[in-house]
Amino acid sequence: MTIQETAAMLQTMDRVLLLTHVRPDGDTIGSAAALCCALRDMGKAACLLPNEGTTETYLPYAEKYWAEEDFQPDYAVSVDIASLSLLPENAKKYADSIYLAIDHHPSNEGFAPHCCVLPEMAACGEIIYELVKLLTPVTPDIALPLYVAISTDTGCFVYSNTSAHTHRVAAELMDTGIAVAGVNKALFRTKSRTRLAMEAWMAEWAEYYDNDRVVIMQIPLSLRHDYRATEADIEELSSLAALVAGTDCGVTLRELEGGKVKISLRTGPRVNATEVCALLGGGGHAAAAGATVSGTLSEAKQAVLQAIDMVVGE
Amino acid sequence: MTIQETAAMLQTMDRVLLLTHVRPDGDTIGSAAALCCALRDMGKAACLLPNEGTTETYLPYAEKYWAEEDFQPDYAVSVDIASLSLLPENAKKYADSIYLAIDHHPSNEGFAPHCCVLPEMAACGEIIYELVKLLTPVTPDIALPLYVAISTDTGCFVYSNTSAHTHRVAAELMDTGIAVAGVNKALFRTKSRTRLAMEAWMAEWAEYYDNDRVVIMQIPLSLRHDYRATEADIEELSSLAALVAGTDCGVTLRELEGGKVKISLRTGPRVNATEVCALLGGGGHAAAAGATVSGTLSEAKQAVLQAIDMVVGE
Repeated sequence: MTIQETAAMLQTMDRVLLLTHVRPDGDTIGSAAALCCALRDMGKAACLLPNEGTTETYLPYAEKYWAEEDFQPDYAVSVDIASLSLLPENAKKYADSIYLAIDHHPSNEGFAPHCCVLPEMAACGEIIYELVKLLTPVTPDIALPLYVAISTDTGCFVYSNTSAHTHRVAAELMDTGIAVAGVNKALFRTKSRTRLAMEAWMAEWAEYYDNDRVVIMQIPLSLRHDYRATEADIEELSSLAALVAGTDCGVTLRELEGGKVKISLRTGPRVNATEVCALLGGGGHAAAAGATVSGTLSEAKQAVLQAIDMVVGE
Repeated sequence: MTIQETAAMLQTMDRVLLLTHVRPDGDTIGSAAALCCALRDMGKAACLLPNEGTTETYLPYAEKYWAEEDFQPDYAVSVDIASLSLLPENAKKYADSIYLAIDHHPSNEGFAPHCCVLPEMAACGEIIYELVKLLTPVTPDIALPLYVAISTDTGCFVYSNTSAHTHRVAAELMDTGIAVAGVNKALFRTKSRTRLAMEAWMAEWAEYYDNDRVVIMQIPLSLRHDYRATEADIEELSSLAALVAGTDCGVTLRELEGGKVKISLRTGPRVNATEVCALLGGGGHAAAAGATVSGTLSEAKQAVLQAIDMVVGE
């Protein structure tokens, strides 16, 4: 469905429950909050299904829209959800009755009878912005969560998914007068002391292979325990390895409970990350992929080096 | 002068020499390169005065426009230069004959007979973009250095100077088809191994004061020597202290040759950085200031803590 068709459909709907994905990020929360606010501005009843995985970072944008226990929706709408497997536990009961799916993931499984999926958009928030513009004035209360959605999914306009459209939407959101400086500071220019200490440890113990083009960083369980690290402290730690100048294959090995290791790869064009991770039973994109293997950190390191060698050597 | 008046003036000029500032950054180089390209597209002779401080990062944008030894300009134009004291050594002979100054620094000293100074612009590149738009088609060869100018002066659209206009210009530059992903990766998502190691050391040895609201990081000379750090490795290292969650006063002490210490402060609203640094013989802005003092790192630490105490306690 096009933006216009989807906007026309939203116009006819009421009593809307908005669903966000597990381990919610800024895009799913910001997009859902903005759409919810817009629907309410249009005089409709709308809520977000409470998502218990929402971190402190995004809670302020979402919790004011959480549905009461007794909210009986006429329609369920999923926002930024690529697959039914990404529904949080309390959303699973709606799996068969999602009426409309709004998403930007190319891998969207088309699980709803009505789908507005636009993979050319860097963030689902860009789609929501275009929808809302056709429906109701874009107020600051709508613009701020949309800015959060768009800036987080683009790393604040730095990732390669950032398009001219992304910047144009950001400009129009800022035209509403929202203060984005505090958002940028909190989201992109703040690191916890634990996070800094863990990054320092990872950098100090980084290992280099294949003429220094492959860097391997590790997060042993003991490190997590020593620093009493929270999920937020660890989130996206695998992006550190991708920063190292001169390398084009950043590997992060994170030791999990139960004798497993989560492998994350961030790569340049020389190394296809999906192919490497496929050899290890995982998957992903060409430039970012992952896998979980059994064994020690040392065994995982040997396995991933071997897999890289096989893929690059082909 | 307005954008329109400045564009009309540029239209009448020929044989233009463009001047950039000492320790050139992306904004001065990108702005000058883009204006040079535009003037040439208009059929004029135009060059950049070679700036020997240009790092590898920005050289590719500038060196193709370097003036030959025998270039005799009719006009000298300064770009992104706030004060004559910021002219590189080889530009000093033009100090009295700069015909036009194009700049965005509020502190611009108005040293030229004609000045186009627009402090509301996050980057000088935004001004150049508006000028070029009135003069000649914005080609990719013009758009790419302007993107470098604008993205570097805003930390890739994250600093508080970023405006709706900044995003709008970025969108229009990307409309020309330039590939910004590689630029973003190189400028904002790459750290040298030396840089990572130094940051790790600084984070590990960070000290906290005043109920953990003040963080002090240090760069001893020995650290520089041990890691054989270049200027590029050290550039902007003082921004690390400003990232620490929970603090609102990030202090970096960098030991210099000759028994001196350079103090850099990045602060939130509670601590006026200019006032603190004024007590130490330095200056700057309310949120970012610096001073150079004589003594050891330990003495500098005591001095800055005392100065913070005096300013905050008032």
